[in-house]
Amino acid sequence: MVLTGSDVAKHNDEKSCWVIIHGKAYDVTEFLPEHPGGEEIILKYAGKDATEEFDPIHPRDTLDKYLDKSLHLGPVDMSTVAQEAKREDPEEVERQKRIAEMPLLSECFNLHDFEAIARRTMKKGAWGYYSSAADDEITLRENHSAYHRIWFRPQILVDVANINLSTTMLGTKVDAPFYVTATALGKLGHPEGEVLLTRAARSHNVIQMIPTLASCSFDELVDARQGDQVQWLQLYVNKDRDITKRIVQNAERRGCKGLFITVDAPQLGRREKDMRLKFTDSGSNVQKGTKTDNTQGAARAISSFIDPSLSWADIPWFQSITKMPIILKGVQRVEDVLRAVEAGVQGVVLSNHGGRQLDFARSGIEILAETMPVLRQHGLDKKIDVFVDGGVRRGTDIIKAMCLGAKGVGIGRPFLYAMSTYGQAGVERVMQLLKDEMEMNMRLIGCAKIEDLHPGLLDTRGLFVHSNSTPVDSLSHITYDPLVVPSQRLKAKL
Amino acid sequence: MVLTGSDVAKHNDEKSCWVIIHGKAYDVTEFLPEHPGGEEIILKYAGKDATEEFDPIHPRDTLDKYLDKSLHLGPVDMSTVAQEAKREDPEEVERQKRIAEMPLLSECFNLHDFEAIARRTMKKGAWGYYSSAADDEITLRENHSAYHRIWFRPQILVDVANINLSTTMLGTKVDAPFYVTATALGKLGHPEGEVLLTRAARSHNVIQMIPTLASCSFDELVDARQGDQVQWLQLYVNKDRDITKRIVQNAERRGCKGLFITVDAPQLGRREKDMRLKFTDSGSNVQKGTKTDNTQGAARAISSFIDPSLSWADIPWFQSITKMPIILKGVQRVEDVLRAVEAGVQGVVLSNHGGRQLDFARSGIEILAETMPVLRQHGLDKKIDVFVDGGVRRGTDIIKAMCLGAKGVGIGRPFLYAMSTYGQAGVERVMQLLKDEMEMNMRLIGCAKIEDLHPGLLDTRGLFVHSNSTPVDSLSHITYDPLVVPSQRLKAKL
Amino acid sequence: MVLTGSDVAKHNDEKSCWVIIHGKAYDVTEFLPEHPGGEEIILKYAGKDATEEFDPIHPRDTLDKYLDKSLHLGPVDMSTVAQEAKREDPEEVERQKRIAEMPLLSECFNLHDFEAIARRTMKKGAWGYYSSAADDEITLRENHSAYHRIWFRPQILVDVANINLSTTMLGTKVDAPFYVTATALGKLGHPEGEVLLTRAARSHNVIQMIPTLASCSFDELVDARQGDQVQWLQLYVNKDRDITKRIVQNAERRGCKGLFITVDAPQLGRREKDMRLKFTDSGSNVQKGTKTDNTQGAARAISSFIDPSLSWADIPWFQSITKMPIILKGVQRVEDVLRAVEAGVQGVVLSNHGGRQLDFARSGIEILAETMPVLRQHGLDKKIDVFVDGGVRRGTDIIKAMCLGAKGVGIGRPFLYAMSTYGQAGVERVMQLLKDEMEMNMRLIGCAKIEDLHPGLLDTRGLFVHSNSTPVDSLSHITYDPLVVPSQRLKAKL
Amino acid sequence: MVLTGSDVAKHNDEKSCWVIIHGKAYDVTEFLPEHPGGEEIILKYAGKDATEEFDPIHPRDTLDKYLDKSLHLGPVDMSTVAQEAKREDPEEVERQKRIAEMPLLSECFNLHDFEAIARRTMKKGAWGYYSSAADDEITLRENHSAYHRIWFRPQILVDVANINLSTTMLGTKVDAPFYVTATALGKLGHPEGEVLLTRAARSHNVIQMIPTLASCSFDELVDARQGDQVQWLQLYVNKDRDITKRIVQNAERRGCKGLFITVDAPQLGRREKDMRLKFTDSGSNVQKGTKTDNTQGAARAISSFIDPSLSWADIPWFQSITKMPIILKGVQRVEDVLRAVEAGVQGVVLSNHGGRQLDFARSGIEILAETMPVLRQHGLDKKIDVFVDGGVRRGTDIIKAMCLGAKGVGIGRPFLYAMSTYGQAGVERVMQLLKDEMEMNMRLIGCAKIEDLHPGLLDTRGLFVHSNSTPVDSLSHITYDPLVVPSQRLKAKL
Repeated sequence: MVLTGSDVAKHNDEKSCWVIIHGKAYDVTEFLPEHPGGEEIILKYAGKDATEEFDPIHPRDTLDKYLDKSLHLGPVDMSTVAQEAKREDPEEVERQKRIAEMPLLSECFNLHDFEAIARRTMKKGAWGYYSSAADDEITLRENHSAYHRIWFRPQILVDVANINLSTTMLGTKVDAPFYVTATALGKLGHPEGEVLLTRAARSHNVIQMIPTLASCSFDELVDARQGDQVQWLQLYVNKDRDITKRIVQNAERRGCKGLFITVDAPQLGRREKDMRLKFTDSGSNVQKGTKTDNTQGAARAISSFIDPSLSWADIPWFQSITKMPIILKGVQRVEDVLRAVEAGVQGVVLSNHGGRQLDFARSGIEILAETMPVLRQHGLDKKIDVFVDGGVRRGTDIIKAMCLGAKGVGIGRPFLYAMSTYGQAGVERVMQLLKDEMEMNMRLIGCAKIEDLHPGLLDTRGLFVHSNSTPVDSLSHITYDPLVVPSQRLKAKL
Repeated sequence: MVLTGSDVAKHNDEKSCWVIIHGKAYDVTEFLPEHPGGEEIILKYAGKDATEEFDPIHPRDTLDKYLDKSLHLGPVDMSTVAQEAKREDPEEVERQKRIAEMPLLSECFNLHDFEAIARRTMKKGAWGYYSSAADDEITLRENHSAYHRIWFRPQILVDVANINLSTTMLGTKVDAPFYVTATALGKLGHPEGEVLLTRAARSHNVIQMIPTLASCSFDELVDARQGDQVQWLQLYVNKDRDITKRIVQNAERRGCKGLFITVDAPQLGRREKDMRLKFTDSGSNVQKGTKTDNTQGAARAISSFIDPSLSWADIPWFQSITKMPIILKGVQRVEDVLRAVEAGVQGVVLSNHGGRQLDFARSGIEILAETMPVLRQHGLDKKIDVFVDGGVRRGTDIIKAMCLGAKGVGIGRPFLYAMSTYGQAGVERVMQLLKDEMEMNMRLIGCAKIEDLHPGLLDTRGLFVHSNSTPVDSLSHITYDPLVVPSQRLKAKL
Repeated sequence: MVLTGSDVAKHNDEKSCWVIIHGKAYDVTEFLPEHPGGEEIILKYAGKDATEEFDPIHPRDTLDKYLDKSLHLGPVDMSTVAQEAKREDPEEVERQKRIAEMPLLSECFNLHDFEAIARRTMKKGAWGYYSSAADDEITLRENHSAYHRIWFRPQILVDVANINLSTTMLGTKVDAPFYVTATALGKLGHPEGEVLLTRAARSHNVIQMIPTLASCSFDELVDARQGDQVQWLQLYVNKDRDITKRIVQNAERRGCKGLFITVDAPQLGRREKDMRLKFTDSGSNVQKGTKTDNTQGAARAISSFIDPSLSWADIPWFQSITKMPIILKGVQRVEDVLRAVEAGVQGVVLSNHGGRQLDFARSGIEILAETMPVLRQHGLDKKIDVFVDGGVRRGTDIIKAMCLGAKGVGIGRPFLYAMSTYGQAGVERVMQLLKDEMEMNMRLIGCAKIEDLHPGLLDTRGLFVHSNSTPVDSLSHITYDPLVVPSQRLKAKL
Repeated sequence: MVLTGSDVAKHNDEKSCWVIIHGKAYDVTEFLPEHPGGEEIILKYAGKDATEEFDPIHPRDTLDKYLDKSLHLGPVDMSTVAQEAKREDPEEVERQKRIAEMPLLSECFNLHDFEAIARRTMKKGAWGYYSSAADDEITLRENHSAYHRIWFRPQILVDVANINLSTTMLGTKVDAPFYVTATALGKLGHPEGEVLLTRAARSHNVIQMIPTLASCSFDELVDARQGDQVQWLQLYVNKDRDITKRIVQNAERRGCKGLFITVDAPQLGRREKDMRLKFTDSGSNVQKGTKTDNTQGAARAISSFIDPSLSWADIPWFQSITKMPIILKGVQRVEDVLRAVEAGVQGVVLSNHGGRQLDFARSGIEILAETMPVLRQHGLDKKIDVFVDGGVRRGTDIIKAMCLGAKGVGIGRPFLYAMSTYGQAGVERVMQLLKDEMEMNMRLIGCAKIEDLHPGLLDTRGLFVHSNSTPVDSLSHITYDPLVVPSQRLKAKL
């Protein structure tokens, strides 16, 4: 029996709440109080078609997994569902105009260009979710800025006719020393979501890390894999360890080659840029007090399952349930790298979660520069693989990380921005640009292959200096009369 | 006998000067030359109702305390007092419009938001008094900026399911490691004044320090206390030690649990932003020379009683008149902390008076980082409680201070701005935001309770570096042609 | 016989060139090639009244001293001299309007205020001459900026009821530890010139240093002295040592109490801001090539007599011709301070000539911080008096210099700006502001008198760091989307 | 037989492609695939006159050297060649207007002034080629900025009446310690090209380095030499060593006195500013993918012949083919300077190719400060001549390099900007300005001749510090209410 729009429309409040997703009706009444994003966001769509809102936040298989079959009410005759006349949104009209006038892909010369275009053309909420970070976003920017405190000491007169960028990560040979790190909610940027990253990673033979919070389901992402393509799994550990175990073992079965356990996010960050945008939504103008967290942005909404009690004591259990190499993602001090070696894990990612968690966390590259000399001194640098992510925008950034001793460099947002603007082609161009920049810059520092890179090629003396200027003396600044260049000479009028 | 408006209006010059305050007349002729704010400010209201001007500057009980009863002339029939037709002030109209369009309280996500809204909506004079600071306001800004030179070294894989922010200050258990520090003239911001802070402190179980220069009287603030709520007393030492003694012993009697003696203000600061505003007042356009100090802002006017001869030699006397723990507020170098230990006081507040006194005084947090290692080295860190204030705007700032070894962190202006914009609810939201930020960030640095915080979680190497950039080379800057991102592609017109 | 305007007007070219100055005619034909400012500037006024141009650049007695009496042609009947109809200059009209609307003197709260008003109201050429400095004016600004890298470590609980700012410089008791240093061409700023500084110095009992290049004559400045007022002489050493000797011995005879020999200016600086202004003059639009220096600003024009061969070997000669204490003005490295001690002079001024000579010369205050520890280490700190000038704008600046060990602090431009805007009253207010700031800030660092100041009250660790930021990454900056505070909430229209 | 325009016009595609250059026709069909700049750029002119595009990129003798005589088709009757009606380009009209209103040459007081005028008046493509640099142009700006981290410690009381700027470079006596370094494509800036530099160098008796990629041919540049004028040769080493040998031996024969082998450019840089401009060209709007490099700016197009396999092993071969002193241009670390000594070359140029190659390469001046103490320590400072280039804009910059121990300082872009705006006269004025600035500043640091300069005259402590500020806290910045100077006082209207 096919339901009609009016059948569904009757169930439009918390007493009985039905919603339509992809042409099927679901009774979510009992689920309301459990919804990680708060019940209000569902009630807004009670009795209506919620597909558009649902899609970017939830993988396809969410309802199958989490809603009892008995509450799957079956197909709806969509021709009978009242189309909500969307008010013409002048902001959206402007945005569509900006999209129509987007630069050519070939005009994007570097990763910043994609970000700039994403800022112009993405929906505000999606841009807010991707670009936002913790507190004052100091760490967000420090991640990139830290690379600017590392300078090169290039060597000359080395034969660099043939440059080889390939390297090996956790046993996988890749064409370049970067990988696609895990980022959430890909469909906010592009309707196809993270499968585009899978395909682009294949084109360039680099590894993709599958995110727990992907918009695409885990299966979709694994199914998109081709040939001997390699994927890793990023894991937020669920309070229910059975779920965690199921996820891990399924991933291993489906061929994932590395388990990256996120350790920098016992609670997901509060990101004010993201939160600020909620208040421009219609329907959210009413003050709600502090009762629920649903005004705290997308990150909070989707992460309530994460276990904040995860600790070193849990590591042996992980080692017992999988043979995949285990890598701790989000290590932030050399002491914990040493402890990771003791714990017998295969690797660490020095990362602060793209600046989205703890503001004033140091950049991955700085932690790398702190870590590697200690590991070498203890003879442990071969015992553990050290990855790094955060703030990478240039081929030179990757080269700097490799000089310091990283095994690989994770890149996240730049791929999202490229995907959100030019789809898969955009992501591939970003990868190509990085390879091109790396190839040229390897030549220019005098190294023909990744193994030739070494710390002596860098000057990192400034890296550890976190200074800021004495506050400006406004009165002097107002008063000073700056020098000027000569002005044009106006010709006498006849 | 009830006086009439015209009775009072006859006494309108320095020969006989009556004023009406809260419906009662007073003869202040003899008091004119003694008035700390100068006689002119009173003469402006001679023969008139001065309540509106009087209220924010003077506690309710001022006239009872300082004016002989014989000069209390009794009630005035206010219906007979001529209402001064207030000229419509276009600035005030604009301000009222801004108030009407204020953001929702729930849109304030951090302490800066309150300050921004206060700047938009407070009366200029009140904003000037609260926000101003010494000389070029370098220290004012350095206080916050110094926190930005401290970075985190978070530890991972610690069970942070349950976060406990409570701690103990001078024997009082509190729910969070911050307190409401003393700030003057609360009624400039809100007609109810500092009692709102008392009530908010109660709601969040944190301590309030009662200011000597509050707009509310000491008794009002103590009376507003509820249950086992704890208050401290901030003391400016009066030249007349009998007055000081009376104040201290009264405070102890009324239940204050700590005596914070201000030692960084033998003279109150000259704050140019505050002074500048006086010149926009009508009636002040005439040049007065240097004869009086009445153009030097509110701070000077209210502080002439402070004793600049206060010295270490006075400490034993304080110890003899009270059993309250004695804390020196405004200590600014480790040498004086050591001397405070010797003097046998219970604590110090490392503070520069919110940047309002000596410009280029260092921030409290820097002095803390200088002090604690020396105390530990001498085995004195348990001998004295070290508090800090100034520049705190984020939960991370508080965490940084606690990592370094502070017992508690004082916060002043942010509460005033919240009070001035949203009243008690604003103050409570500020407290809640700080608690929320702290809870999350404790999780993210891997500490479940305050005692777990330690200096190893910080990188303070940059903290002591006070640099400023070489002045900018204007000609290079004008001449350099910066890179740009790709521009939009204008579609050909048909 | 009184000349007429037409008598003079006939002598209007290089063959016969007469000019009128203060109502008298002079034949300057033979002097043309020797004129330090170039002959063209004189020829512009050949046959005309040149008083207005002549006055600020030349002391009254110039013609008497340097032009043979036979060429003094006697009085001119000024009623017969054609008044040049001055074109209404719209810039000058605007300037007069700005002067009419100048703020009240009592609204000037600090030294920057005077500079800001001077910039608005001075003639462009005069502003250019006073405010300009060498090359990119880096040192000009560094002079002030360096003080911002010195922070206070105030001591508390010191009896500061009575503050005493008096000190002794070269045997003279003064009321404050600053003096009026030598600056050229005072009449550019005010028609009365440097005598105003003499009078203001008297009012505040501080010392004035008489400049070689004053607009007022030496005699005028000495004559303006009152009572036991003390003056020093600043000396540019003339290539002709007889002239130098005459000047020095005359100064001693007239009561000067110190001889400050300028040693940082073997050639006067090239100041582009000053030079740039020449090109806006009418009459200078024609390109002249590099033939003369007359386009190089006022400084070059007036200084061709200075001897660039002056050397250490000349010091004994100076010691032989005068009993005044000799002070070397413009010493810039500790090695030369030590050499000055050896040479037996009484003092040095650590100075870079207000940033007007060598760009990237270090600030006086930095050289002081370099010098004093070395002198103390060698036991020489009592052997020589060390003065400092450049960049002082606040009472705290003076205190910092005195803490480091200076005997006195020279101030130049701020007095000129005050004089140019408010005349003698302005200069006196500047002096009063400095005293007021010093008095309060002495209290706040816990010192009752100048001798109590010591280096331990300062943190100078940042002083020697000359850093500049890595150039900004424009693309990141363009692309970053900064956080904003909540916006106003527009009320729905009815 | 003279060809007509229509004869040529028939050969307008890749099957048969003729072009007219300087009135002669050439068949370039077979050459198309080999053209370093890509075949498309030629096809745009197939059948047409290509002189205007050809000239700045190719020396006159290019076709004679590289195109078989059989393909030289002989003269064309230019009166029969169709004139392409150039569309009026509004940008070009504006540019011509700016040229017409250019400041006088005598208004250019420093090297920045020329750059500013060049930016206003040069064709965009030419400006882009000259001014652009690698990646984010950080090194480009650091080159100048690094000089700003070096401060002077001038010595006083030295006889500086006579300043001598002359010095000796590779055995040649020159009038000033700078030389004209090699820069490509001079005709982009001025139709006469680099011969103007040759002539200006002669006027000022400084050395010119002849660039491999000059717009003028090598012979033209050598022919422009006068008297005993000295030139050096800059060499990009060709993959075909026979060509390289021919070039080197020809240069020696024609009298070049030094061979500067470029070692920092195994591949020429990718410069985004230059690339960006291509997209504003008409005809380039079509997206081409990554197939060719022709969108990557001029540098790539002209440099495909350079041998990236050049290595230390090649040095003996160079030594075997020439007696000219060999200097390695583009050395960037002290280790390679030491290796150069071992290799027996006569000199090195510490250079990063004007910031055009590897972004985050350090400045030459910093490498110099790293290098010279090591050379002195090893007793090698007389064994090798060390030159430096990059970022020099002031006489003080040159003096700083000479103090550190450089033998000479190369200057490139400033001469190009002067040439592009004022031709030879501009270049000569730049040279004169540098000499004037040097002469004065030698006086001011107390050195009469170049040999007197020494490292003790500098403070280089800040030079090695590569810091950047902690990212700005936008919310604080928005919220802070800066101090202001007093506003004008509006007079009451009557």
